[in-house]
Amino acid sequence: MTVVGSIAFDAVKTPFGSRDRMLGGSAVHFALAASFFDDVHVVGPVGEDFGPDEYAVLEARGVGTGDIERVSGGQTFFWRGEYGWDLNDRETLETQLNVFAEFEPKLSDASRAADVLFLANIQPELQREVRAQCGSARFVALDSMNLWIETARDSLVEAISEVDCVLLNDAELRQLTREPNFVRAARSVCEWGPRVVVAKQGEYGASMLTEEGFFALPAFPLETVIDPTGAGDSFAGGLLGYIAAHRDGELDHALLTRAMAYGTALASFNVEEFGVERVARLTSEQISERVAELQRITHFVEKPIALRG
Amino acid sequence: MTVVGSIAFDAVKTPFGSRDRMLGGSAVHFALAASFFDDVHVVGPVGEDFGPDEYAVLEARGVGTGDIERVSGGQTFFWRGEYGWDLNDRETLETQLNVFAEFEPKLSDASRAADVLFLANIQPELQREVRAQCGSARFVALDSMNLWIETARDSLVEAISEVDCVLLNDAELRQLTREPNFVRAARSVCEWGPRVVVAKQGEYGASMLTEEGFFALPAFPLETVIDPTGAGDSFAGGLLGYIAAHRDGELDHALLTRAMAYGTALASFNVEEFGVERVARLTSEQISERVAELQRITHFVEKPIALRG
Repeated sequence: MTVVGSIAFDAVKTPFGSRDRMLGGSAVHFALAASFFDDVHVVGPVGEDFGPDEYAVLEARGVGTGDIERVSGGQTFFWRGEYGWDLNDRETLETQLNVFAEFEPKLSDASRAADVLFLANIQPELQREVRAQCGSARFVALDSMNLWIETARDSLVEAISEVDCVLLNDAELRQLTREPNFVRAARSVCEWGPRVVVAKQGEYGASMLTEEGFFALPAFPLETVIDPTGAGDSFAGGLLGYIAAHRDGELDHALLTRAMAYGTALASFNVEEFGVERVARLTSEQISERVAELQRITHFVEKPIALRG
Repeated sequence: MTVVGSIAFDAVKTPFGSRDRMLGGSAVHFALAASFFDDVHVVGPVGEDFGPDEYAVLEARGVGTGDIERVSGGQTFFWRGEYGWDLNDRETLETQLNVFAEFEPKLSDASRAADVLFLANIQPELQREVRAQCGSARFVALDSMNLWIETARDSLVEAISEVDCVLLNDAELRQLTREPNFVRAARSVCEWGPRVVVAKQGEYGASMLTEEGFFALPAFPLETVIDPTGAGDSFAGGLLGYIAAHRDGELDHALLTRAMAYGTALASFNVEEFGVERVARLTSEQISERVAELQRITHFVEKPIALRG
C-alpha cells in the first residue's frame, strides 16, 4: 500500500485535555491503521523538526518511511484546532503549510508498485500526479475536503473520475454534488467514475454505496472519546488495509462491507486518546475483538410476523 | 395498545412542497404506525374543527377513536413549522395549544387495560397521570422534548423513573443528562429506572441501550425525503407495535433489536410524503420488504483475518 498525504505536528484542544505538539497528519493516521493489514509506504514532506522520535512511531509499526522527504531548513506542516463539547464541531485555529507549500510528490519504485493507493486530503492536482505514477494499483481511494470543493472543484472532479473509491464526510459529499440527499449524492459521484462511495458521518458511523447496493454501519459506541483528529484517516486505513490484505478473490460488496467494519474499528480506537497515541500501541487481538463486538451490536435476526392490513 | 399525545393540524413547509392544514400530532403518527401490529386506542383532545375526514383516516386503519375527546367550541392543537435544505433543521413558527391547554386525560376501561402504553411528548405531569391509570401495562414508553427538559425537568425525571423505556432525540438525551457522550447519557437514564433507552438520531438512525447491551441501526436510505414531521412517533409506533404483537415470550434484547428494525421501517415510510399521507396507505407487504432490505444493508459477515502485530 502507498499513502500520500500530510505528515504533521498537531496542536489540539478538546474539553478533555490538550496537546501542544503531537505527531499527526492524514498520511500518518492512515499508515498506522493500515499497518495492521499489509506493508505501507508513506509519501510526504517533513521539515528538519521531524526527528527520530517521530520516525520511531512509524517504524515501530513497520511503516515504510523511505519516501518521506525531509526538506533541509524546512518546518513540518502544522495544524492547530479546538473541539467543543460536541466533538463533531471543530474549529481550525492555525494552519502552517510550511514544507507542504512546495511539495512535489516523488515516489520510489516500491511506492509506485502499490497494489492499493490512498490519496489523502491534499490538493486534487497532487492527487492526480500521484495517481498517474501508480499505474498498476488495483484499488485507488481518495479523500478531500470543503477547501478543495470550494477552490478547485473541477480538478477534484477530474481526480475523482480517476479513482475507484471516494471517501468524504457526508456534508462534503452533499456540498460537492449540490445534492442534499445522501443516496442521490453518492449516485452522482458514481456516475463520475468511482464504483465505491463512502460517506463518513462522524460519531454516527459511515455509509457506502457500491454497484451492488447500499451498506451502512454505525460508529462503535464508546464511553470515552478524547480526540477525533485523524479518525477519518484511521477509518480509511482500516478499510483499505482490509482490501489490501485480500489480494486474491473478487473485491465484491460483501468484502467491502467487512472492510467498512475494520475501518470503523480502527477509527474507534483512534478517538479514544490524543493523536496517534492509542493506535500506536494497539494490538491485533483488540482489533479483532472490536470487529466481533461491532457485529453483535449491529446485527438483528428478522423474524417475519403477521401484520395487519 | 394505548397512546396519549397530541392530535393536531399541522402546517408544514419543506424545500419540496408544503401543506397548509393536514392531520398530524404525535398520537396520530404513532397510532397509524402501530395499527399494523395490534389494537390501538388514541387518547387526546380535539376541537370542533376535527371532522369526519380526520376520524376516517384513523378508523380506516382500525384505530380506536373512542377516547378522543371532542371539546365543544374548541379548536384542535395547531402547529406550523418549516424545514430547511438540511431536513434535520426544523423551525417552529407557530404553536396553538387550543384544546390541549385544558387537557385532562380520561381513559376508558379499554384504554386503561392496555398491555403496551406510549406516553407521547406532552407535559410530564400528564404522562404520569396516564401512566398511573394504566396499572396493568406490561411495557410503558415515554417521549419528551427540550421544552420539558428546560421547564419541568424534575417532573420529567419522575415520569421517566416510572416507565420501562425512554425514546429521545440524541441531543435531548444529552441535554437531559448533561452528559455529551451518548453511551454515558443512556446509562444515566437507565439508573433512574427504565431498562431500555432509545436515542433517535434522525437521518442517521437510532441507537438503543438495554440491560444486555448496545444496539445501533442506521436509518433506511431513501432517495426521496419530503417531510420528517412525525418520523419519531412513527418509529415509536413500529417499535412498540412489534412489542405489543409479542405478548408471549420474553421481552429480551433480541426481540427489541427486531422492534428497532420495524420502528426504523415505519419511520422511513413516514418521511416519504407529507404528514400521514404515506403511512395511511401503507401495506403489510411493504413493511416486511423494507425490514428485510434493512437487514441486508446493515449486515456484514465477519471473517477473521491474520493481522500484524
